[in-house]
Amino acid sequence: MIRVALDAMGGDFAPDVPVQGALEAAAQLGDSCQIILVGRREEIEQALLKHGSRPDAFPIVDAPEVVGMSEKPLAAVRGKPRSSITVGLRLQKEGKADAFISAGNTGAVMAASTLLLGLHPGVDRPAIGALFPTGAKPVLVLDSGANVDCSARELCGFAHIGAVYAKDVLRRPDPAVGLLNIGEEEEKGNAVVKEAHAMLKGSTGFRFVGNVEGRDILSGTVDVVVCDGFVGNVVLKFYESVARLFRRLLEREMDPSVMESPGMAEVFRILDYSEYGGAPLLGIRGVSIICHGSSPARAIKNAIRVAMQAVESHLSQHIGAEFAEGGAVA
Amino acid sequence: MIRVALDAMGGDFAPDVPVQGALEAAAQLGDSCQIILVGRREEIEQALLKHGSRPDAFPIVDAPEVVGMSEKPLAAVRGKPRSSITVGLRLQKEGKADAFISAGNTGAVMAASTLLLGLHPGVDRPAIGALFPTGAKPVLVLDSGANVDCSARELCGFAHIGAVYAKDVLRRPDPAVGLLNIGEEEEKGNAVVKEAHAMLKGSTGFRFVGNVEGRDILSGTVDVVVCDGFVGNVVLKFYESVARLFRRLLEREMDPSVMESPGMAEVFRILDYSEYGGAPLLGIRGVSIICHGSSPARAIKNAIRVAMQAVESHLSQHIGAEFAEGGAVA
Repeated sequence: MIRVALDAMGGDFAPDVPVQGALEAAAQLGDSCQIILVGRREEIEQALLKHGSRPDAFPIVDAPEVVGMSEKPLAAVRGKPRSSITVGLRLQKEGKADAFISAGNTGAVMAASTLLLGLHPGVDRPAIGALFPTGAKPVLVLDSGANVDCSARELCGFAHIGAVYAKDVLRRPDPAVGLLNIGEEEEKGNAVVKEAHAMLKGSTGFRFVGNVEGRDILSGTVDVVVCDGFVGNVVLKFYESVARLFRRLLEREMDPSVMESPGMAEVFRILDYSEYGGAPLLGIRGVSIICHGSSPARAIKNAIRVAMQAVESHLSQHIGAEFAEGGAVA
Repeated sequence: MIRVALDAMGGDFAPDVPVQGALEAAAQLGDSCQIILVGRREEIEQALLKHGSRPDAFPIVDAPEVVGMSEKPLAAVRGKPRSSITVGLRLQKEGKADAFISAGNTGAVMAASTLLLGLHPGVDRPAIGALFPTGAKPVLVLDSGANVDCSARELCGFAHIGAVYAKDVLRRPDPAVGLLNIGEEEEKGNAVVKEAHAMLKGSTGFRFVGNVEGRDILSGTVDVVVCDGFVGNVVLKFYESVARLFRRLLEREMDPSVMESPGMAEVFRILDYSEYGGAPLLGIRGVSIICHGSSPARAIKNAIRVAMQAVESHLSQHIGAEFAEGGAVA
C-alpha cells in the first residue's frame, strides 16, 4: 500500500478542496493507497463531516501552522517548522509516507522538498515538470518555473529527468525529447541553448530530436520539451489563459445550447490541465507533487494517482541512477 | 500619397499572394496609397493577369534575385544585392518609397533593413513587434524574435519603442506597458528582468505597470508586453499553434454545422493574427514590416494599411526622438 501525505491546508479553497479530492481518490483507488491528511486537525475533520464522511476516514497528522500563498518561500519554511508543508514532507523523510502533494505555496513546497528530502547527487536544482494537454497524449514541459536562470548543463539534466518521467509515469518506452528554441536549425537560439544543443546531441537513453519551436510543443511530435523555468513558466500560464479566452469568445459568439453540448464539454475537458493532476518536482530524493492553487478536487484526486505511479515505478530512484551513471552530466 | 514597396517574391505563395494582397489593398485604399511591386517582373505580371488585373496596374521594380526562406540572412543579403528584399529597401533609402513590406525570410528582412536604413541613434538592435489577438484590442509583444539575448537596457528600449507604437499606430494615448516575468512581485525573475524592472520604474512617457505573467498577456490590462526575443518568439508561435489545436478539437467533437456557423467563423477571425497584418521592425530609420511566410492575401492587405499608419503618424521619427531625448536610455 502506497502512503500519500496530502497537504490539507494548501490551495485557494483549503481544507475543503484537498479533503474532497482525498475522498474522491479513496473511492476510486481503494486499498492500494493510504491518504494521510496533514494540517489543522479540527478544520480537516469539519471538512470531512461537511462532505458526508466520517471525521476519522483518513489518518490525520496535525500541523497547526499554515504557509500563505504569498509568503516568501524560504522564510516561510524556516519560520514555520510546524506548517502542513514541512510536517507533510517530514513524514516522507522519516519513512512514514511515500509521497507528498500540495496545492499550496509553490516556492515553499519546492524549498521544503529540497531542504528536507535533498537532491540526487549530480542534480543542481529540482525542476518542475508540467503536463500540457495536446488533444492526444500530454507533453511534459520542464522546467516550468523552478529555475529562472539555467546553464546548458542544467538544461541537459532536465532532458534526462524528463525522459525518465516519460518512461516511468507516462509509460512511453522511447521518449522523444526536444529543446525549446526559436528555430529548428542547430545554430539558432541564445548562447545557453546553443551549448545545450551541442551537449544533448551525444545523449543516450532517449531520442533527442533537436530544437523544437513554440508551435511544436502541442504538435505531439515530442514527449518532453526542455526549457529554462522562465520560458516554461510564461508558456504554461499563457496556455491556461488562452483556454479561458477561447471559452469567453465562444460564449460570446455561440448559442448557449452549443456551449452546453457534450462535444463542447469534451473539448474543454481535454484542454483542462487539472486532468493531469499537478506538476511533479523532479530531481529530489522522493516524490513531491505541486498542484495549482486553484486546483479543483479532481486535480487533487489525479495528483494522488500520479503520485502513486511515481512511487510504484521507482521514478525517483531511476532519476538518481540516471545521474549516478554520469549519463546526465557532461 | 504614401508609397509602399511590397516584396512580391516573399512568402510561401509568392508572387501570387503578395500580388493578390496588393490588389485588395488598392481596391480598399484607393489613391491614398501607391503600391510598388518589387520582384521578377514577368512573374509579377503573370500573377496580375491571373487575378484579372492589368499587368501595369502597379509600378513594378524589377529584382531578378530571390532570397529563399531558409537561406542564412546575412549571407543572402550580401550575396544577392539584386534580391527583392534589398531592392525594395533601397527604394526607401533613396526616397522613392516610404515603407517596405515582405513575407519573405524574416532574418534577411531584418538584416537588410538594419544595414540599408540604419538604426536610430541609441537603439542597439531593432525589435520585432507582434500583435496578439485578445478578443478585444490587440496587445503588442516585443521583442518577438529579433534578439535572443537581451540586456536590461535593451528591454527598457523595447518598452519605449512599444509605447510609441501603441500611441502612433494603435492610437492609445496613454499606453500601459508590462514587463513579462514569472511573478508579479518586483523581486521575481531572472537577473536581466530584475534589472530592467528597476530601470523601468523611473520611466516617463508611458505607464509602467510592473511585471506581468504569461496569463496577463491576453487579459487586456496592458497595451505593450516587453520581453526578450527568445521568450516572445516562443509565445508567439505557441499562440498560433493553440488556435490550430482548438480548431482541430472542435472539428473532432462538434457537428459540422456548428463549425460552419457565423459565430464560429467570428471566433476564429478574432484569433487570426493575419487580421493585424504583420509585425513591424522597430528601431530602424524607416518603416519595414515583416509578414508571416504563410500570410494570406488579407494579411498582406492589412500590412499595407499598417505601413500607411506608421508613415502617416511619423512612427519612426517619434521613436528616434524618444531615444534622442535620452528618455529611453538609462
